[in-house]
Amino acid sequence: MKLLEERIRKDGRVKEGNVLKVDSFLNHQMDMELFEEMAKQWKADFADCPINKILTIEASGIAIAAIVGRVFNAPVLFAKKSRSVNIDGSVYCVEVESFTHKNTSKVIVSKKFIGPEDHVLIVDDFMANGCACASLIQICETAGATVEGVGIAIEKGFQPGGDALRAKGYRVDSLAIVDSMDPETGEIVFRS
Amino acid sequence: MKLLEERIRKDGRVKEGNVLKVDSFLNHQMDMELFEEMAKQWKADFADCPINKILTIEASGIAIAAIVGRVFNAPVLFAKKSRSVNIDGSVYCVEVESFTHKNTSKVIVSKKFIGPEDHVLIVDDFMANGCACASLIQICETAGATVEGVGIAIEKGFQPGGDALRAKGYRVDSLAIVDSMDPETGEIVFRS
Repeated sequence: MKLLEERIRKDGRVKEGNVLKVDSFLNHQMDMELFEEMAKQWKADFADCPINKILTIEASGIAIAAIVGRVFNAPVLFAKKSRSVNIDGSVYCVEVESFTHKNTSKVIVSKKFIGPEDHVLIVDDFMANGCACASLIQICETAGATVEGVGIAIEKGFQPGGDALRAKGYRVDSLAIVDSMDPETGEIVFRS
Repeated sequence: MKLLEERIRKDGRVKEGNVLKVDSFLNHQMDMELFEEMAKQWKADFADCPINKILTIEASGIAIAAIVGRVFNAPVLFAKKSRSVNIDGSVYCVEVESFTHKNTSKVIVSKKFIGPEDHVLIVDDFMANGCACASLIQICETAGATVEGVGIAIEKGFQPGGDALRAKGYRVDSLAIVDSMDPETGEIVFRS
């Protein structure tokens, strides 16, 4: 998606350690007009899918998912992260590693909000190793829901998450795929 | 706001310990059509204010703030919660207690995204003791920004947060104020 790539080039900052800072428009301060255009792109790309639920994970995915929910006219469900161990039987709970935070947390969704009647679009701001997304897929499939696809704003194409999910047959629609980035020059190369 | 009160009566559940569960439409699974109506109500109520930024706190406030951002045509900023102590000079950081989680965390906003040019509407899903909201106000005022008002979906009127802020002169616009609720009967009384 040209609009997003241009915005990343304009306002993104490449840092050491494969970090791309986009906190001025994507995941701290957030540009809702951009999110609306992203949501419309996914709406067009998944026009053939009977999507009736949007699933994301706290915190950075929620605002994107909210706008996607408006555009798809579907409820939005966000998985909660917790380190507490007191999980009762009424929730799906999966362990997930975080690339950003270098820790492990539990990803939790109430059983009553996802089931076999759901055709789910999973949405998130970033994909790197794909651990968060894999945990959401696992929850959907345990619940008997259909994962229609995965909508990602920025995929780090040099990390294995996106391509690993595609190899398993999932439809991963990343609006910008960064194939390389250079913290010295600030140069960002997108997959065409 | 009648629409929200009716929804709370229909789908909310009163639990022991002054807990109102609204996770089917407000803060786990989320109804974006409802959020749009809430946002339009705040847009009407704050029509006289030059609001140019929406501020909330992760995680449950983010989806509401996103829809509010669309309706106000303003960027949305969400404060991050962290227990880490490594805070550098580029952020505003305030300690806050959580009523729900019975712990203390740090509330963090990057300095570059808030300043004297900002006229802020603070948005959140719940207000009880008002600690989260007070921390966001403190960040705004430290940054020299103007707090135009506070938009809350559900205020627990029997807890002091909302009225304490009103007594200080802040414009707190809660769309539903619960004056009492009974876990035995499920009855909820709204302030009229």
